[in-house]
Amino acid sequence: MSGKDLAGKQPRAVVLVSGGLDSATVLAIARAEGYDCHTLSFDYGQRHRAELSASARVSRSLGAVEHKTLSIDLRAIGGSALTDEDIAVPEAQTPGIPVTYVPARNTVFLSIALGWAEVLGALDIFIGVNAVDYSGYPDCRPEYIEAFEKMANLATRAGVEGHRLNIHTPLMELSKAEIIRRGMALGVDYAETVSCYQASSDGLACGRCDSCRLRLQGFAEAGVADPTRYAN
Amino acid sequence: MSGKDLAGKQPRAVVLVSGGLDSATVLAIARAEGYDCHTLSFDYGQRHRAELSASARVSRSLGAVEHKTLSIDLRAIGGSALTDEDIAVPEAQTPGIPVTYVPARNTVFLSIALGWAEVLGALDIFIGVNAVDYSGYPDCRPEYIEAFEKMANLATRAGVEGHRLNIHTPLMELSKAEIIRRGMALGVDYAETVSCYQASSDGLACGRCDSCRLRLQGFAEAGVADPTRYAN
Repeated sequence: MSGKDLAGKQPRAVVLVSGGLDSATVLAIARAEGYDCHTLSFDYGQRHRAELSASARVSRSLGAVEHKTLSIDLRAIGGSALTDEDIAVPEAQTPGIPVTYVPARNTVFLSIALGWAEVLGALDIFIGVNAVDYSGYPDCRPEYIEAFEKMANLATRAGVEGHRLNIHTPLMELSKAEIIRRGMALGVDYAETVSCYQASSDGLACGRCDSCRLRLQGFAEAGVADPTRYAN
Repeated sequence: MSGKDLAGKQPRAVVLVSGGLDSATVLAIARAEGYDCHTLSFDYGQRHRAELSASARVSRSLGAVEHKTLSIDLRAIGGSALTDEDIAVPEAQTPGIPVTYVPARNTVFLSIALGWAEVLGALDIFIGVNAVDYSGYPDCRPEYIEAFEKMANLATRAGVEGHRLNIHTPLMELSKAEIIRRGMALGVDYAETVSCYQASSDGLACGRCDSCRLRLQGFAEAGVADPTRYAN
């Protein structure tokens, strides 16, 4: 990716941001590759609302052209500890697909990103999925992303007109420690990000959920000071 | 499809309903095939709001177990005459993909249906797309649906556990006249449906937009009286 399209302008990309460590790193990578980045977050009824302000903060710091938060009420379908108050966020690792899995979430988010990309005339979408230190979600696997990309090229005007839409997953094969080192090299300030599944409204992390444990371990392995603000 | 699953219960299906002629017919077909139908509509900022009450009415009449309307603000991304007040609904046919196309709409709707199916333990999703009398939208073609189904099986818990998710498109190869005859045979009351892209709030159709023209022509070809209420 040269950083210029045929008209000599920066090409546009839609970057999914969640306010967390991974998507902040993805945004920094997309910027470093020369894209004008339009970042997209979702207010989907998640309990960890602190991620919405973190998404806006990270988008600004890392030079996104524009940041949108789109509302979609996934609580209406329920089925996850992240959207259903009656299902507790687990604080110990369990085998299989965890209850924090939000049914079809990446598919819904990527679909909306696809629609926005079409409106913007962008052919590139970035998402921070990861197959290494991931939480056992089916929609974080490379074969899933490949199938989504194929579908996306059949779903849209761009595909019909012979252009090629690309779903970029620059973190897919990186460990959490490698992600952190990569982001630090690109100037990401991880103090601005929130990963916790049950962060307090002012962004304090619990330090005990799956997402906190992966993050803690990542900073330890990367040998980098952890700037996360924990509740205790 | 025998109408009973292994436990001797009716299998569940998620059926996308828009309040229009096509999706009402699809719901009648899914019911006739023995599914317990959970219908899903979207409040996505469309100008034709009359379709929301039509969706509820049709779901009730045709025996859906449950009907949900999920809110998603697609106006935030714009790009279509159906969601953007600044783009007029055309009243003459134009070549290519029309401005009423909502970027990635079927992909977004099917993705949310997929999430709900997962919560319900349903393996079947019905959608009224049609490749014959369709409006030139890329996301109504059989190759698109096939690619979505493949992606869906990689995206979800059901797919990972070896079950198979199916996207049913019973109208794909039917003409509008055939759809109408099929629905009449199954007892659909088309007076309850609204197809118009710019219907008035009490459901009166304009009689001039693409969708009205296809519907009018369908009733004429089927040799059936058109129960649609037109504005003039």
